[in-house]
Amino acid sequence: MLSAKYVGGQLVEVSPYLPNDPLPGEVQIQVFFTGLCGTDLHIVHGNMDKRVKANLTFGHEMSGVVAKVGSSVTKFSPGDHVTVMPLDWDNTCPACLAGHNHICQNLNFVGIDSPGSLQSLWNVKENWIFKLPAEISLKDAALVEPVAVAVHDVERAELELGDKVLVLGGGPIGLLIGLVARNKGAEVRIVELDESRLTLIASLGFEVINPKTSDIGEYVNTWTLNKGADAIFEVSGAAAAVLSSVEYLKVRGKLIVVAIHSQPREMNLQRVFWRELTIIGVRVYEPSDFETAIKLISSGAIPTSKIITHVIPIKNIMSAVSILEKGLAMKVLIDVQNEAEAASL
Amino acid sequence: MLSAKYVGGQLVEVSPYLPNDPLPGEVQIQVFFTGLCGTDLHIVHGNMDKRVKANLTFGHEMSGVVAKVGSSVTKFSPGDHVTVMPLDWDNTCPACLAGHNHICQNLNFVGIDSPGSLQSLWNVKENWIFKLPAEISLKDAALVEPVAVAVHDVERAELELGDKVLVLGGGPIGLLIGLVARNKGAEVRIVELDESRLTLIASLGFEVINPKTSDIGEYVNTWTLNKGADAIFEVSGAAAAVLSSVEYLKVRGKLIVVAIHSQPREMNLQRVFWRELTIIGVRVYEPSDFETAIKLISSGAIPTSKIITHVIPIKNIMSAVSILEKGLAMKVLIDVQNEAEAASL
Repeated sequence: MLSAKYVGGQLVEVSPYLPNDPLPGEVQIQVFFTGLCGTDLHIVHGNMDKRVKANLTFGHEMSGVVAKVGSSVTKFSPGDHVTVMPLDWDNTCPACLAGHNHICQNLNFVGIDSPGSLQSLWNVKENWIFKLPAEISLKDAALVEPVAVAVHDVERAELELGDKVLVLGGGPIGLLIGLVARNKGAEVRIVELDESRLTLIASLGFEVINPKTSDIGEYVNTWTLNKGADAIFEVSGAAAAVLSSVEYLKVRGKLIVVAIHSQPREMNLQRVFWRELTIIGVRVYEPSDFETAIKLISSGAIPTSKIITHVIPIKNIMSAVSILEKGLAMKVLIDVQNEAEAASL
Repeated sequence: MLSAKYVGGQLVEVSPYLPNDPLPGEVQIQVFFTGLCGTDLHIVHGNMDKRVKANLTFGHEMSGVVAKVGSSVTKFSPGDHVTVMPLDWDNTCPACLAGHNHICQNLNFVGIDSPGSLQSLWNVKENWIFKLPAEISLKDAALVEPVAVAVHDVERAELELGDKVLVLGGGPIGLLIGLVARNKGAEVRIVELDESRLTLIASLGFEVINPKTSDIGEYVNTWTLNKGADAIFEVSGAAAAVLSSVEYLKVRGKLIVVAIHSQPREMNLQRVFWRELTIIGVRVYEPSDFETAIKLISSGAIPTSKIITHVIPIKNIMSAVSILEKGLAMKVLIDVQNEAEAASL
């Protein structure tokens, strides 16, 4: 039994622990895989110390098998393959009452605000859990959460068949948005600086744009016959991308702000006015997005084997962090049940 | 026969001229009133010298009476009371083909990009003209264009009955947006710094907020029971208003960017993400907005006599500009047919 805790001061500790029994209404999950994302990196880098309590067991992209159920749990049984939607809303705030529970004004994001899935046995509330169909492997199922992010972002964009869509930033979320949008019938181009990511993305059939060698504006004008893109997903987090993105949009085009911009960004509101653009904020996902994500992975629409570039034992979690920091990975999973320490990675 | 021309170098010249006869498809209008707006001030201040040709007869908010019609004109006859929607689109660009003619990619905005209504007899294309019903006075009809702006902005916001709406900036457009939104069943608050404007707005039954004496955030929290406003119209043009506005919006709230921000503005995209906000650009109006504006004024829903604070003869146009610059007016109209020069104003 191991868990990985952010102990504060940019340090992660992997150590043995004794799990509790599940409480009434809780399910104990044997966690198999936990993906790491940008938010986890922010936690480990100490950028979220104001929000994240020290000694937090983090992790929120996961898959596992039900080990034990607490009293009153009826929907799950030991042996079920499951994943968790890590959102705990209060059902009473104005956002919840308006039907937007997923962005509850007092949201507990599990794995950030309360203990997450980087532990061998994890007790979670029954109503956060989604059962997995037999077609999905546990490894692939660790992608359900990030795929649900992409599904939610594409839903919010209300794309139409044949829409020309630009994705700024070809990391895991950018790539997944591209895949989900293409699956919806959009014509997608992905903008990315990193050559190894560009190669991977191109191998999945996408036309890619490297802004180091191509002028994005000229590309878009040629591609769209001077109309502009129907929608742009800003996934890069870069100030320059925000500022220039609106130049590439058609009249009444949409900019979907996916990346987290921790400081105010300059925005060309003159262009927003001139072309009557819409800028749309997107955050996490709704239960329907989780269901769609499970279906997309089950159906093979997401090339999981190309996206999951690394699977690393939990004791080597700092190597995983380092691989992510260097931009060498697409998606890195932590193998939570593998308690060995790899000699080298 | 007088016309007012922006001759360049921040100078306006009012001088006699000889009007041409209307061409085929054109209508000659005897212009009675022309309202001045912020854009006209920008023209006179030389801020638009790159776009505006020297010796431009400007003006685009107007009312008048048909004097003569060119050949092939069938819809209008001499004596008709009319107003003009000053948009000339090309019908061929991608925006027009997508049904958004009003923001044609090659839009000729009449009165900015081509001669406008500050002239005794004005020849315009038949298809820009709207006939006025008998209930509207020519003076009130000069407000149709700015009311159409407000109608368009409120339409784009897709307000629902009872929505709590904040208008940042209580100049003519902010006030008209407040009136149109209230007429649609919204609960409106108007934020303005200027005391004389605040008094006028309050006299029209609005609750007003002066940010010099009230904290807008606290006000909104109390007013909305900690939910946030449903929609905010940013009409102030101020950088600080853009930055703080998103703090006052509910989850999934909407910020409508009405003011023209000639330079990039800092935007809190973290908040846009956190609350899944939408930012909506709005520009000019569509023909249906013009029709709605005419109906609203006809029905008495717009208190025109309070909004039109000054009517000034054309030879005194620089006094009108000065009154606007000093923020002493709500709406100033130029009386184009009054060729006298007022001794003092």
